[in-house]
Amino acid sequence: MGVQVKRIWLMQDEPEVIPAVSTLTEKHEVVLITGGLGPTSDDLTREAISEAAGISLVFDSVLWEDLKSRYGLSKAEANRKQAMVPEGFQVLPNANGTAPGIWGTVDGCLVAALPGPPRELVPLFQDLLRPVLFEQLQLTPQVETEVSCFLIPEAMLEDACLKIGGNLDGVQWRTRFQAHRISLYLVGGSTQQREEFIDKLQQNFGEALVRRGDNEAAALLLETLKQSEAQLVSVESCTGGMIGTLVTNIPGSSEGYWGGFITYDNQAKQSAVGVSRSTLDTSGAVSEAAVLEMAEGALDRSTADVSLAVSGIAGPSGGTIEKPVGTVWIAVSRWTNQQVIHSEAFHFTFGSRRDIVRRRAAVAALLLTEIMVRKPESLDMVQHWHYS
Amino acid sequence: MGVQVKRIWLMQDEPEVIPAVSTLTEKHEVVLITGGLGPTSDDLTREAISEAAGISLVFDSVLWEDLKSRYGLSKAEANRKQAMVPEGFQVLPNANGTAPGIWGTVDGCLVAALPGPPRELVPLFQDLLRPVLFEQLQLTPQVETEVSCFLIPEAMLEDACLKIGGNLDGVQWRTRFQAHRISLYLVGGSTQQREEFIDKLQQNFGEALVRRGDNEAAALLLETLKQSEAQLVSVESCTGGMIGTLVTNIPGSSEGYWGGFITYDNQAKQSAVGVSRSTLDTSGAVSEAAVLEMAEGALDRSTADVSLAVSGIAGPSGGTIEKPVGTVWIAVSRWTNQQVIHSEAFHFTFGSRRDIVRRRAAVAALLLTEIMVRKPESLDMVQHWHYS
Repeated sequence: MGVQVKRIWLMQDEPEVIPAVSTLTEKHEVVLITGGLGPTSDDLTREAISEAAGISLVFDSVLWEDLKSRYGLSKAEANRKQAMVPEGFQVLPNANGTAPGIWGTVDGCLVAALPGPPRELVPLFQDLLRPVLFEQLQLTPQVETEVSCFLIPEAMLEDACLKIGGNLDGVQWRTRFQAHRISLYLVGGSTQQREEFIDKLQQNFGEALVRRGDNEAAALLLETLKQSEAQLVSVESCTGGMIGTLVTNIPGSSEGYWGGFITYDNQAKQSAVGVSRSTLDTSGAVSEAAVLEMAEGALDRSTADVSLAVSGIAGPSGGTIEKPVGTVWIAVSRWTNQQVIHSEAFHFTFGSRRDIVRRRAAVAALLLTEIMVRKPESLDMVQHWHYS
Repeated sequence: MGVQVKRIWLMQDEPEVIPAVSTLTEKHEVVLITGGLGPTSDDLTREAISEAAGISLVFDSVLWEDLKSRYGLSKAEANRKQAMVPEGFQVLPNANGTAPGIWGTVDGCLVAALPGPPRELVPLFQDLLRPVLFEQLQLTPQVETEVSCFLIPEAMLEDACLKIGGNLDGVQWRTRFQAHRISLYLVGGSTQQREEFIDKLQQNFGEALVRRGDNEAAALLLETLKQSEAQLVSVESCTGGMIGTLVTNIPGSSEGYWGGFITYDNQAKQSAVGVSRSTLDTSGAVSEAAVLEMAEGALDRSTADVSLAVSGIAGPSGGTIEKPVGTVWIAVSRWTNQQVIHSEAFHFTFGSRRDIVRRRAAVAALLLTEIMVRKPESLDMVQHWHYS
């Protein structure tokens, strides 16, 4: 937001929070407080603010009516304290809990207090307090361009950003590590410079792995399936249901997702999707032949028209010299007027950690399927994907 | 360690660190400082300590010789400042960097400063400072008893701990929120008192929801399956593969897990596990009849001898007055010499958040199955489970 954080104090619920608020408001332009807005006697944030400002706490009847209507009188009574507001302070309504946020000024210092539980705190900050801070502090909104980066090792992404950023002076970037991607946020520079930054990243890593906006791989795939009026079936061995979980985590996924088979045991690969005994004996469960049969078998056994199949060695044991831990075969198949099928071997070597191998395999399968449906002529680019 | 953390201050490298050390040493028995021990002018920790204590910084020739021998004269010269130590302070040699840790007393307050980079800080704290703190503060090593709590709402667990802890004076507790459970750590009191604490929690919430040790629900189920030489098949609708993911996240799970069916679309429920069209038409996909047919169908279509089936309304949409968001039906079935089957309706109302409903449904299904295999005569206790 363009505000410098000078200090962060973490305290217990204790009487010392009262002088602390005075100390901090004297020396800063903004003081943000989280927590201490509960209904019990050791929740002292309201008292601390009113003491620091030399103002009294007043009963807010609108807040009180709201508490009563949402929680009933008896629960509201126990929370009566939460309807008290420092005189002259504004209320930020909390849709996810009993304690509202409040803000006002204390000797020229903007003071805001928000409830501590993250699921209450985060929306209150983002939706209600952030705009207040922008207006009251006359901040210039930083234009931030978000990019979702998949399967790209952290160090490789950072190197690429350093190289690209060196030629695009104004653009700065920060990264946020998420479970299935790295979110990259570009600030500064012109819109054109930020777009050029993204173009260069895409040239470097492939357009499928660098996507504009805040995207999950599963959401990108569901959107593509929707546009093609196609439905997916998944067959998972090493990922054990993770792909299904990621897809169904998106509300409304039932339209594009038929369901799937978790063929963990080899017997399941045979009986549930019809992998042949001879393939398992000759090539093994982690093989191109096995995933091709899994993908084909799933199309036959469902009303879906797109299938993906994953079989790999997630570790920590089970690796061999020929197929070390991190080896994952993925096949995708689509039935339109004829069947199109594609298979690819991946080697996720990053520390060979079981959870990381599984997550990368799931993301790779989702993105590979997305390309199969949206742009099958580009499937060859998958060979150049960076991952480790 | 048995030390109460009263406050944590995060500051920038700025002149205010000097008065801050004085302020903190006046009010506390121990002050731990990390960072600010570098060689540049804005690294002020040494100066802050010497100012607070009213002592001077003295040149430590042993440290200096060590710096020279490890980094060469020219680099050592640049770091000369790091050979300065507040008079009377002890040095904690740093094997991983140039800045040693230091400790001493300032007006009866033990003050220690360690370098900030985690790979220097952590070993210095664990190996060298921790023993000093134990000795100087005459601390008693704390025995910690870990308990894994499932499906118990945070506030309800806290209330129970307060009630139980009130009668078991010496026992204290802290909680850690994990994705699929709350970990509870008991310290203080006698072993017997901590055991009594756990017994009472189990009486309150049921033994299946309060488990001694560091346990995942999936690991508990796999262990029980192993002891019964049984294998599981899962049928998931609203959880969409999450149960399979949790089970296969445990290394070695292939022994106890055949695999599963993700029957997300109703067509999948029919064709993959044989749910009848009439059941879907009459009772709906989220119904006792549907999950019973799912569980039975999966046993028929696999070589597994235990099955679990889940169908529910995860939201945000899809709820009705009769079946609101959070309604989840679970059935478990086991084939020994005859088939034993049990079904249960759950109502996960906590904020009706899609991810929370799904996670709670997955954990409930894993625990319900675990009881079905280990202690089927106790299945009735499930009705009394607390969850929301």
